[in-house]
Amino acid sequence: MKVEIIVIGNELLLGKIKDLNAYWLANKLLQHGQQLSHISVVADTKEELNSAIKLAWRRSDLVITSGGLGPTKDDLTKYILGDYFKKEICFSQQAYDIALQHCERYQREYDKEKYHYHDIPKDFEPIFNPSGYAPGLKYTENAKTLICAPGVPREFETMISEVLPTVIGEQSQVIERFTVKTYKLPESNIFHSLIPDLWEHLKKYGEPSSLPHYAGVDIGVVLKGDQETVNKQKKELIEYFDASAIKENIYYYGNKTLPEILVEKAKEKKLTFGFAESCTGGLNSSRITDVSGSSSVFNGSIVSYSNEVKQKSLNVKSKTLNNHGAVSEETAFEMAIGARDVLNVDIAISTTGIAGPTGGSKEKPVGTVGIGISSKNGSDSKIYHFKGDRETLKFRFSQMAFFLLLDEIQKH
Amino acid sequence: MKVEIIVIGNELLLGKIKDLNAYWLANKLLQHGQQLSHISVVADTKEELNSAIKLAWRRSDLVITSGGLGPTKDDLTKYILGDYFKKEICFSQQAYDIALQHCERYQREYDKEKYHYHDIPKDFEPIFNPSGYAPGLKYTENAKTLICAPGVPREFETMISEVLPTVIGEQSQVIERFTVKTYKLPESNIFHSLIPDLWEHLKKYGEPSSLPHYAGVDIGVVLKGDQETVNKQKKELIEYFDASAIKENIYYYGNKTLPEILVEKAKEKKLTFGFAESCTGGLNSSRITDVSGSSSVFNGSIVSYSNEVKQKSLNVKSKTLNNHGAVSEETAFEMAIGARDVLNVDIAISTTGIAGPTGGSKEKPVGTVGIGISSKNGSDSKIYHFKGDRETLKFRFSQMAFFLLLDEIQKH
Repeated sequence: MKVEIIVIGNELLLGKIKDLNAYWLANKLLQHGQQLSHISVVADTKEELNSAIKLAWRRSDLVITSGGLGPTKDDLTKYILGDYFKKEICFSQQAYDIALQHCERYQREYDKEKYHYHDIPKDFEPIFNPSGYAPGLKYTENAKTLICAPGVPREFETMISEVLPTVIGEQSQVIERFTVKTYKLPESNIFHSLIPDLWEHLKKYGEPSSLPHYAGVDIGVVLKGDQETVNKQKKELIEYFDASAIKENIYYYGNKTLPEILVEKAKEKKLTFGFAESCTGGLNSSRITDVSGSSSVFNGSIVSYSNEVKQKSLNVKSKTLNNHGAVSEETAFEMAIGARDVLNVDIAISTTGIAGPTGGSKEKPVGTVGIGISSKNGSDSKIYHFKGDRETLKFRFSQMAFFLLLDEIQKH
Repeated sequence: MKVEIIVIGNELLLGKIKDLNAYWLANKLLQHGQQLSHISVVADTKEELNSAIKLAWRRSDLVITSGGLGPTKDDLTKYILGDYFKKEICFSQQAYDIALQHCERYQREYDKEKYHYHDIPKDFEPIFNPSGYAPGLKYTENAKTLICAPGVPREFETMISEVLPTVIGEQSQVIERFTVKTYKLPESNIFHSLIPDLWEHLKKYGEPSSLPHYAGVDIGVVLKGDQETVNKQKKELIEYFDASAIKENIYYYGNKTLPEILVEKAKEKKLTFGFAESCTGGLNSSRITDVSGSSSVFNGSIVSYSNEVKQKSLNVKSKTLNNHGAVSEETAFEMAIGARDVLNVDIAISTTGIAGPTGGSKEKPVGTVGIGISSKNGSDSKIYHFKGDRETLKFRFSQMAFFLLLDEIQKH
């Protein structure tokens, strides 16, 4: 089954917002044993949407559109698609009821003159919208299916989750992204020096991939088949990598994020942790608290953006700040010790650096970061250097702090 | 000039990563007076890339591809495109030099046998890569241009930034997204009840748009023309909205993010602020510290995920936690007062709630949040309810806290 998505919206082409629906759909489809084959983002005009649907309807079995079902005048999806499939717009009692139900949930009046949610193309089936006003639409012709869902991510997700099982039907196979997460090695070393036949080996199992990221490479292969075969292949692959030249650089088998892995490993070892964050400014904490269940291992953090907070809440000595500056091994060291004490955690990690674009100097350029660790094993700190803009640097500082935390957890 | 991007990568179609390059390019093009017309995400196979380039080359003047230039065997972009344009792959001294320069930067050897960065299609011009190994590629034919850049965002961005001015040439017009940021009103109220002719009015200036988001709607119009005309139109539009029925619901004219607006307004009023974060878990702080220059108004935060940290670092009374629970008006109230004191800020905002998916109860379901404010004007707190998954809820809690902070800043 070939599945593709057409994302309708000038906001994306104007760089106003980032697409979330295609990303979400790609992951959702895997759960149903399907793979997304194309993502197209087009403007909400008749010409653009017409040529996008023409192409998609020819090459795919299931076409999902996102956006253009709302109440404003740029919401033209159903008119354009009705026109394309030569279906006139008619009053639909079912669509009317869906709009009405939404009004009742929010104690509003449904003004039939102002809104047009009840008008849909003939032979299109309205889809219930559990979290919004506009009904979705479903159309079937010659074993091909079109689904139109609203662009608001929550509405898109709840609606597609509801309707997908009925469209895709009985799952004939499992698709799983098997991922080997490695760190401290560049991509070219892995594939050209350490395991030169890695790509060919992975190809025996399915489509390989290699995704370099900050301080590491995720090596992947897409496994397809019945659950038993996929499980057997996963086992074989783990054995292969465990005996490989990059064994020491593998920190995880699976698709969990680094924060999820940290929470999992800390739980296993019954350890608590927390942060003293200056340059990462809350990013470490926010990434960890994105993980459900993080509260059992994460006590909290001190975001000490000002020196005053570093002194008052983390007991960094004013002498240390004066003699070495806020961005120094010495300050990072005291921040980590202070955080471990005040947060009462087993492991505390501190970050103090210059995320830029201003604030750099010759000795301490933008991208300099001091990272400290404190645990019952002792305390330590070190200066690191990275490149990038402000957001990239915050993320790289955070990623480095997380890898150090991972190493520290594994030492316990 | 019609510009489009083809994003090559199975990682996106497998939902492994979110696209960043198309979003970045859309914004970059506006600075050059151009608009992105299409985004296509395709698999890295010959068949898919061939049909994508065929379509793009027909309808666009400038086609940019992202991805598939790396060292692994799925990096086929240059081979497929060379084949498509019937250009054989040859050794390029220029491409060789670019790869060599990268090696020198990182003190590595360039192994000509293993890597193929020096092989590019005939008549293609290599582009210097200031932050990576692989040269980009440029090809021109019949006044149309193709640019191939690496998929790694930092490499993509630095390369495209360099090459775009030479391809686009003298800027003939300005394109600006004029945005009116509103809050506390649903989209349908604005367009159907309060200003029924708003859409038609905006159309006189350019392409209108309406983007509903958490607790507000961004109303936009794309202005095009010479700088003087665009400035005049902006002035007219502001006057129009300032005299409109939604005047009180407008919090900003322009494209800044809410965190940027908070930093700007706090600077204007010479106010400092900070947070006591439980359920938002550092997100408030991280969003604020994404803003360059935030250190002049943001002192820091206490991320008090555990009750112990709430007591120890924010002076919340154990009696309050025992009698009312961590998620209560009373705890939010004391957290805000505690944060204002310990962070020594003019305004402190606290958030304590249940982001789920577990931890909810009948009285306090998932989505419940207590938000407190403390300033010299006094202290207050209130319970709010939202819907969504964990990440959405964290963001909605944060957004609500930011709107309350905005109102508080404006009272000073």
